[in-house]
Amino acid sequence: MNAPELIRKKRDGCALERGEIFEFIERYTRGEIPDYQCAALLMAIFFRGLDARETVDLTEAMRRSGQQLDLSRFPQPKIDKHSTGGVGDKTSLVVAPVAAAGGLLVPMISGRGLGHTGGTLDKLESIPGFNTRLTLAEFRGVLGVCGMALIGQTEELAPADRKLYALRDVTATVESIPLVAASIMSKKLAEDLDGLVLDVKTGSGAFVQKFEQARELAARMVEIGTACGISVRALITDMSQPLGNAVGNALEVVEAIETLKGRGPQDLVEVSRELTAYMFMLGGLEATLDAARARFDSLLASGEALAKFAQVVAAQGGDARVVQDYSCLPRAQYEDSVVAPEEGFVAALEARALGRAAMCLGAGRERLDSVIDPAVGLVLEKKVGEPVCTGERVCALYANDRVRLAHAHTMVRSAIAISPEPVAPTPLILGRVPEPRSGG
Amino acid sequence: MNAPELIRKKRDGCALERGEIFEFIERYTRGEIPDYQCAALLMAIFFRGLDARETVDLTEAMRRSGQQLDLSRFPQPKIDKHSTGGVGDKTSLVVAPVAAAGGLLVPMISGRGLGHTGGTLDKLESIPGFNTRLTLAEFRGVLGVCGMALIGQTEELAPADRKLYALRDVTATVESIPLVAASIMSKKLAEDLDGLVLDVKTGSGAFVQKFEQARELAARMVEIGTACGISVRALITDMSQPLGNAVGNALEVVEAIETLKGRGPQDLVEVSRELTAYMFMLGGLEATLDAARARFDSLLASGEALAKFAQVVAAQGGDARVVQDYSCLPRAQYEDSVVAPEEGFVAALEARALGRAAMCLGAGRERLDSVIDPAVGLVLEKKVGEPVCTGERVCALYANDRVRLAHAHTMVRSAIAISPEPVAPTPLILGRVPEPRSGG
Repeated sequence: MNAPELIRKKRDGCALERGEIFEFIERYTRGEIPDYQCAALLMAIFFRGLDARETVDLTEAMRRSGQQLDLSRFPQPKIDKHSTGGVGDKTSLVVAPVAAAGGLLVPMISGRGLGHTGGTLDKLESIPGFNTRLTLAEFRGVLGVCGMALIGQTEELAPADRKLYALRDVTATVESIPLVAASIMSKKLAEDLDGLVLDVKTGSGAFVQKFEQARELAARMVEIGTACGISVRALITDMSQPLGNAVGNALEVVEAIETLKGRGPQDLVEVSRELTAYMFMLGGLEATLDAARARFDSLLASGEALAKFAQVVAAQGGDARVVQDYSCLPRAQYEDSVVAPEEGFVAALEARALGRAAMCLGAGRERLDSVIDPAVGLVLEKKVGEPVCTGERVCALYANDRVRLAHAHTMVRSAIAISPEPVAPTPLILGRVPEPRSGG
Repeated sequence: MNAPELIRKKRDGCALERGEIFEFIERYTRGEIPDYQCAALLMAIFFRGLDARETVDLTEAMRRSGQQLDLSRFPQPKIDKHSTGGVGDKTSLVVAPVAAAGGLLVPMISGRGLGHTGGTLDKLESIPGFNTRLTLAEFRGVLGVCGMALIGQTEELAPADRKLYALRDVTATVESIPLVAASIMSKKLAEDLDGLVLDVKTGSGAFVQKFEQARELAARMVEIGTACGISVRALITDMSQPLGNAVGNALEVVEAIETLKGRGPQDLVEVSRELTAYMFMLGGLEATLDAARARFDSLLASGEALAKFAQVVAAQGGDARVVQDYSCLPRAQYEDSVVAPEEGFVAALEARALGRAAMCLGAGRERLDSVIDPAVGLVLEKKVGEPVCTGERVCALYANDRVRLAHAHTMVRSAIAISPEPVAPTPLILGRVPEPRSGG
């Protein structure tokens, strides 16, 4: 394989062969192909795309670039959930313990927040002592005890993806549907799963803002899963406003625990229930979605899901008292409010802008090396469609720095729109891939 | 300037600002922007293009990345010629001495052959002793004595272009009209010229094979020149068959000297005359093209052009006896012939295939580090449109390696097409930019 010829081939709109893709990824991972040739190829892929077969080949090449988990000694169905990322998206903290409490093995490898979005690992690390950097042996140990574990990407799994992702991030080649699909699926396939449920976010706070693109991304990932022998279902869910009320790491942990206690905000509960229900279905634990949804509700009501969460927090070194005593979590020094300037109905809570405001407070990272403040963030007290009176609080802000607080206050203010006319609440679940048969 | 943001901007089809382009090129030349970001930007430019203003800005940024010649102490008009490259294109060896003999200063900085094309420097270096690697001080010295000099690209002039060109070569981003235009013009503008005549080749043996693209490239370069305050004229000339009869370094030197003696092949004479005539016009030495063409013919007839060539060969360390005694040049051991398989008319002498055959013999380089054999090559004894009898020689091959000779023989044979019907000779000068006013 000649790297410039391969780049030229893709540049000119031809499909790359499986052997070419595997050799390129192997040699790139070993450092034999320089970053500059890979960057040119990525940009050519950005413009020309990859067809379904090429995307599967790229995914497999990346998956095989490192070790792969072997979870065959565990008896449970191995089912994971993955979200494409958004603002206030703490569903992993709810879904994983409910699914594990219900009898699934959930070997969840998560990411960190970047830009305006949060990351599951950052949220978990706001719990004192919680360790997301387990070795693969420790990871297996926690899985054995709890039926679930929550860790970050390791050196061993899909190293090609880590290298490619870092390069895409600095060469403006992140926003390519086949590259996003291959990146996500290569990591998930290395987890040795039986099934995977995807939460593809769409709207201003998502990476894929348009519904059609989100559906294409979902379809592409379902296709890859099918080609690689695992069952994949995808929901396309709204990210035009944050999910739930809290945005910010410790604040979101509180909201997730409240949800496990049956007191979660309606939208977070609905998305979590639906994702978990698909996990139960894929794992063969329930035959119908309605029964699977009911299992979710009963695991919350019985306290089993909350107990599972406490168990995994303890197993990963965290302070499990947090589930009863939120004062174990870091708390911000300053609080401020953004209130409704007039009477009406909340018409928009612009998710990207609110994510940026939280990042400005210190809840997210602008650069890979930014340090996160776990205590800060914001809590929405109204969601789109709700009525507000003049001067009523729409959003609470929590900060440790007055200058950042002032900036964030301005940002939040302009992210909120109030309408004098009633506003319909935003639909939450916008699509399913594959589309269910009637009645499904 | 944030490099990923700049790449994204171009990727999404927006024009880059002048300040952004200058800062990117400055920082890239200093090594502060890594090759991988530059490669991604080049591929985005390949797909999105650059508008006229951006192309001018890029050219100026590259021109200013290093030293610029100061030729103000020379009284003559400073006029150069540049060809986009082809097969058998030895016009520089004719045009430069005629132009200098006619009273112009010709500070010609040339390139080497790559792929199927030849390079002026490689041709000159087939003359024993000829040194194309002069320092800028030596270059000025030769210019002072001869009114012309023929050297290669130096470290000092337009270093950004050298760095970018090397990167484009290995990232499949060579074939972009604005990048080609900026590359050529940045080097030529650093020569401190008053005027520049371009020979943009089109046809199978050229880098830009389609006429429309060649015209676009020519127009882009004329625009850049105008924006930067120098007069530029471009001819678009045929490269569907080789120019002249000889392809190969020493063989082409002989043909160039023959042309300076008034015995050149008709097509080479015509293109050389036309290019030189434009140089005289741009230099203000003649008021009409017809008078300028006549000056070309009289400088050949008087022997002044030949004397100028001998002078510059000697000034650059070469054996000037070559102009009278071709046995000073290296000569190949083996000779072979490709003959017409049937009676008819020469319908095609496929330039790219013939260039590849010459490269196969050792006349060109497949890689930057290939070593050239100055003696080898081929000489066409018929051109397109000429009648041939069965068994009559169409092409002579000269080689130092029998295996290569056999390969090249096959390549030449399939590059030649004979038609039973008469074939019109290929038009040579296909366009002019800017287009001349009627009668011009």
